[in-house]
Amino acid sequence: MDHTAILIEIISVLGTAAFAISAVLAAEKKEIDLFAVMVLGMITAVGGGTIRDCLLDVPIFWAQDLSYIWIALASSIIGFIFFGLLKKKWINRFYLYIDTFAIAMFGIQGTNKAWELGFGIPAGPVLLGVITAVGGGIIRDVLLQRPTLLFSKNLYAIPVTIGCTLHAMMLMLLPEIGSISAIISIALIIYMRHLSINDKITLPEWALLGYRIQKFENYQNK
Amino acid sequence: MDHTAILIEIISVLGTAAFAISAVLAAEKKEIDLFAVMVLGMITAVGGGTIRDCLLDVPIFWAQDLSYIWIALASSIIGFIFFGLLKKKWINRFYLYIDTFAIAMFGIQGTNKAWELGFGIPAGPVLLGVITAVGGGIIRDVLLQRPTLLFSKNLYAIPVTIGCTLHAMMLMLLPEIGSISAIISIALIIYMRHLSINDKITLPEWALLGYRIQKFENYQNK
Amino acid sequence: MDHTAILIEIISVLGTAAFAISAVLAAEKKEIDLFAVMVLGMITAVGGGTIRDCLLDVPIFWAQDLSYIWIALASSIIGFIFFGLLKKKWINRFYLYIDTFAIAMFGIQGTNKAWELGFGIPAGPVLLGVITAVGGGIIRDVLLQRPTLLFSKNLYAIPVTIGCTLHAMMLMLLPEIGSISAIISIALIIYMRHLSINDKITLPEWALLGYRIQKFENYQNK
Repeated sequence: MDHTAILIEIISVLGTAAFAISAVLAAEKKEIDLFAVMVLGMITAVGGGTIRDCLLDVPIFWAQDLSYIWIALASSIIGFIFFGLLKKKWINRFYLYIDTFAIAMFGIQGTNKAWELGFGIPAGPVLLGVITAVGGGIIRDVLLQRPTLLFSKNLYAIPVTIGCTLHAMMLMLLPEIGSISAIISIALIIYMRHLSINDKITLPEWALLGYRIQKFENYQNK
Repeated sequence: MDHTAILIEIISVLGTAAFAISAVLAAEKKEIDLFAVMVLGMITAVGGGTIRDCLLDVPIFWAQDLSYIWIALASSIIGFIFFGLLKKKWINRFYLYIDTFAIAMFGIQGTNKAWELGFGIPAGPVLLGVITAVGGGIIRDVLLQRPTLLFSKNLYAIPVTIGCTLHAMMLMLLPEIGSISAIISIALIIYMRHLSINDKITLPEWALLGYRIQKFENYQNK
Repeated sequence: MDHTAILIEIISVLGTAAFAISAVLAAEKKEIDLFAVMVLGMITAVGGGTIRDCLLDVPIFWAQDLSYIWIALASSIIGFIFFGLLKKKWINRFYLYIDTFAIAMFGIQGTNKAWELGFGIPAGPVLLGVITAVGGGIIRDVLLQRPTLLFSKNLYAIPVTIGCTLHAMMLMLLPEIGSISAIISIALIIYMRHLSINDKITLPEWALLGYRIQKFENYQNK
């Protein structure tokens, strides 16, 4: 159990760092300065969990444990300084996987926190898990005026949603195996992201609105 | 009184559905998928009320009654599948009126909730009523990177604001006729929206900033 | 002490007005109407403090004292009517300095409020101070779809951050001189803004991401 705690700690630190670094990567094309990179890094890293804690009406997690703030700040600065390196292919791949571990773990953590507080079970914990994982990134995208990750062709929020849904379903049906369920759900999210990063899965055509519109027009013209 | 409760329930369900469907209509031109439609649908449907409950520091309404979430999800999916139909003129008109009933009712409901909790009477309940009615739509517009409904030429938020202000004024002056006041205010909002949908009222010219600027320039050049 | 209270009151009123007026100035190029100007004015004036109070889980300040709302509303309307005058050079300069006093004072006030509530000391009060001062302006920019003040070349959020950080450091090291520390920090923010308004200080080149990228590319090509 001690090993698990250490592992969670490590992923937590690396995940917060990955979130913060994503801000400088997302900002690439904008004329941006170190200060904005730090602000965006912090918002990306703790934004989702902040919304979650507001909705749950519990103390904001980073005010209880400032290490999230320090990690986000330090990572933003490091990301700024070594920005060039982040463009190297293998480092970028490494970064993508750290981010994947982070959204998987923070998503399931968020679901767990909401579940323990009995927040709108069963749908509430799923929604809060997804918000925890991707909320910060969405605020970052809005501030940078770029299309939010919701509209990216890459599967990002969808694996988190599927994983959090699976976890919530297992918590409902088999509450006694909560930790096993968490591990399975995290693994599922990571696996789906892994497939998406390597272009092995994409959205099916029928799930695109453009496809629906064309279908309808064809039907009209018959 | 039982009839009223049923009526409120029906408008509530239809209104939540109308809000959710507005997301897929707003997204039309974006390359968007079913998942994003569901997320935007939910945010549009429950976003305003969520901000209201955060500001009031009360439990989030949809965590207390998940049916709002289910309705928003189901309507988003239906809106996605039958997107083509929504473009049909009479269906679109029907939709516009459902949405009108929804903003009217949710606005006055929001005002009532804030009033009962004594939140910044009398201006607070007006502001929270407006936020309840149009807050979700504004977040939707921000995420879609389209001009928010605040800048639309169509009167949308203004009728809600007038209705909520009227209701708050009547609650202050004649608290004993709160339900009658609510009905009158809802009717006023619907009537103003009806006139606006049919292009019978538009913003007066003097209320446009462009007009003010020109006025000033003319004055300067004299 | 009575004089201080009156002074704080005056800056508070003028500052709220300056924030509200900034909305109509920011909106200049958009086709915007009086209603939108009022909404944006209110959001700019009270938005930052609202987020702060949500995070602190305390009653929203403007619901406790509606005068902030009335001042913001009145200033928005006045700003709308006399929009042309705001473009006059000396009035615009006067406005810039009122806004400077406002961000300085609201920032330090926000830091104080968070500090008294023991919110994530020492970093929490700094972050909430900055949010109080610039949060409303950022929401305004997002709604107007213009680049947020975070990316402006003018130093705006940075002086506030430095001032709030200084104040938090002094509160930690010399808690008994809290009021003196507040005055020094406010003065520092105003002085830095003054230098920036008159183009006496700008961001150093090394703090720009573009510079970092070029540095890296030069290094690569060696």
